[in-house]
Amino acid sequence: MKVLVIGSAGMVGRKLVERLGREPDCLGASIDQLILADAFPSPVPQSLASVSSVLTLDFAAQGSAEKLIEQRPDLIFHLAAIVSGEAEADFDKGYTINLDGTRLLFEAIRQAGLKEPYVPRVIFASSIAVFGAPFPDVIGGEFFTTPLTSYGTQKAIAELLLADYSRRGIFDGLGIRLPTICIRPGTPNKAASGFFSNILREPLSGKEAVLPVDENVRHWFASPRSAVGFFVHGATLDLSKVGPRRNLTMPGLSALVGEEIEALRRVAGEKAVSLIRKEPDPVIAKIVAGWPTNFDASRAVGLGFRAESTFDEIIRIHIEDELGGHLG
Amino acid sequence: MKVLVIGSAGMVGRKLVERLGREPDCLGASIDQLILADAFPSPVPQSLASVSSVLTLDFAAQGSAEKLIEQRPDLIFHLAAIVSGEAEADFDKGYTINLDGTRLLFEAIRQAGLKEPYVPRVIFASSIAVFGAPFPDVIGGEFFTTPLTSYGTQKAIAELLLADYSRRGIFDGLGIRLPTICIRPGTPNKAASGFFSNILREPLSGKEAVLPVDENVRHWFASPRSAVGFFVHGATLDLSKVGPRRNLTMPGLSALVGEEIEALRRVAGEKAVSLIRKEPDPVIAKIVAGWPTNFDASRAVGLGFRAESTFDEIIRIHIEDELGGHLG
Repeated sequence: MKVLVIGSAGMVGRKLVERLGREPDCLGASIDQLILADAFPSPVPQSLASVSSVLTLDFAAQGSAEKLIEQRPDLIFHLAAIVSGEAEADFDKGYTINLDGTRLLFEAIRQAGLKEPYVPRVIFASSIAVFGAPFPDVIGGEFFTTPLTSYGTQKAIAELLLADYSRRGIFDGLGIRLPTICIRPGTPNKAASGFFSNILREPLSGKEAVLPVDENVRHWFASPRSAVGFFVHGATLDLSKVGPRRNLTMPGLSALVGEEIEALRRVAGEKAVSLIRKEPDPVIAKIVAGWPTNFDASRAVGLGFRAESTFDEIIRIHIEDELGGHLG
Repeated sequence: MKVLVIGSAGMVGRKLVERLGREPDCLGASIDQLILADAFPSPVPQSLASVSSVLTLDFAAQGSAEKLIEQRPDLIFHLAAIVSGEAEADFDKGYTINLDGTRLLFEAIRQAGLKEPYVPRVIFASSIAVFGAPFPDVIGGEFFTTPLTSYGTQKAIAELLLADYSRRGIFDGLGIRLPTICIRPGTPNKAASGFFSNILREPLSGKEAVLPVDENVRHWFASPRSAVGFFVHGATLDLSKVGPRRNLTMPGLSALVGEEIEALRRVAGEKAVSLIRKEPDPVIAKIVAGWPTNFDASRAVGLGFRAESTFDEIIRIHIEDELGGHLG
């Protein structure tokens, strides 16, 4: 099986590739060829080094899409994206990468298929940013996509293209709407959503973190491990069960910031909690107030997708995957 | 006021232009300049001949978008489209005109605004084809768009772009999701939806018409006069009342084919009804079964949009607007 990962140097892409390296049979067939593509150099898993190649390229540049699918990969994970904040700040960059790049990829697949039969599977990383406030308490499986960011708009458009190209048999696509990933590894960044991870990750390593919103803010979460699991499951799922509605809101955990903190207390004690400094930031509070808080993901659950059901579990996964299995 | 009508030679575009000619103040300000653009030559209303110009061009060709907005129209009606059947048969043509053409227009407006402030109003003709079966009995205002045609996909994408460009203040846009227009003037065509109009228009002129489906087929209708009214109302509406959800399902009449026939009987008698020949066509029946039948359009109604509430009214409008006010 030939596998292409686009966005393989990003947070989720990197973890997906690590999983392929650790469990090379998790896709249901052995990997004969692994193509890792990103704007930045991709790390190569040692166990798959002999079958891996790295493409470092600009996703939306002329010829990139053709180069990406030159080897006719059977399975394409498309996780390349300009993130929300940057796509909002840089109109052209966001539309170029998130919309044009995606369309060029889809078109290259179509053109390749016109020459010689070719119908790969395409698993696309979408986002709950396709939804825009106001929301019902629980966002149902048939709620409309009225994004309030250019990023969300670009993801929603890519979802529509993916469904139409799949319906026409050009490829076999699945859109995976990711919850907010928590606990994001790394260091605190300026993303408005950063604090959801910061207030756990930093105290778990003995460092201070800033909480800019109230404890009663609710949000929708899944661990990085679950995110990888969604892509792997999507790659092996019988897509005929999915039908023409190809974009799925993934399961997640709807939780309050206060519940994050209580879980931290249970797992790491009062001392960890005391490292959270409350510094209300009305700008961040306003941005966060426009985000969805809870979904009915029963369709994805019915198709076998799974996420965490408690924040204790999310914290444990971070300790296992990022901290070597124990608190420092 | 400078007004641009793109798609001015199409059925609805032509009727919109006729209305502007008949009621030049219906837009709330006098028309100083009227630009009529289409791939086919546009008829010019006599009363506005001195301020009208005709552009016959390929909407998506290089330079067309810039040419269309060269005069910086204050109000743009965008009704240009490759219709459903053709967009399904010709993948490239549909995407080129319906998606690329629309995006080029929106981008040209943005680029013009970057040079010198320019925020026109854009009223865009969308379609209930943005929805795809299965449907609830009544499609609510927050139902998701999962089109089952490339045409519907292209319209749904254009809606997303329109909302994002409006949110960013690039233009002030409104998407008008038209019901099936009935009674379409002209002659019977091969569109799968043609019979909804044929079974009224033809008998009203003493001609035979074929009904390929059961009388219990339900669908969603508005007259050509209402369609024009939607665009005129959208052009004058206070769009700040609409908020960021810029695409509205227009009101319409949910009716059975049997109700069409009963209205025909009331208006034109048994003889007219006897001209309807039943010729069940399972292919057309299957296509029609995937179409929406009823909507909750209360949001648009709350904003002042109006359509017919009986088929008698729809038939009367056809007699007034197409048959000189009386049956032959």
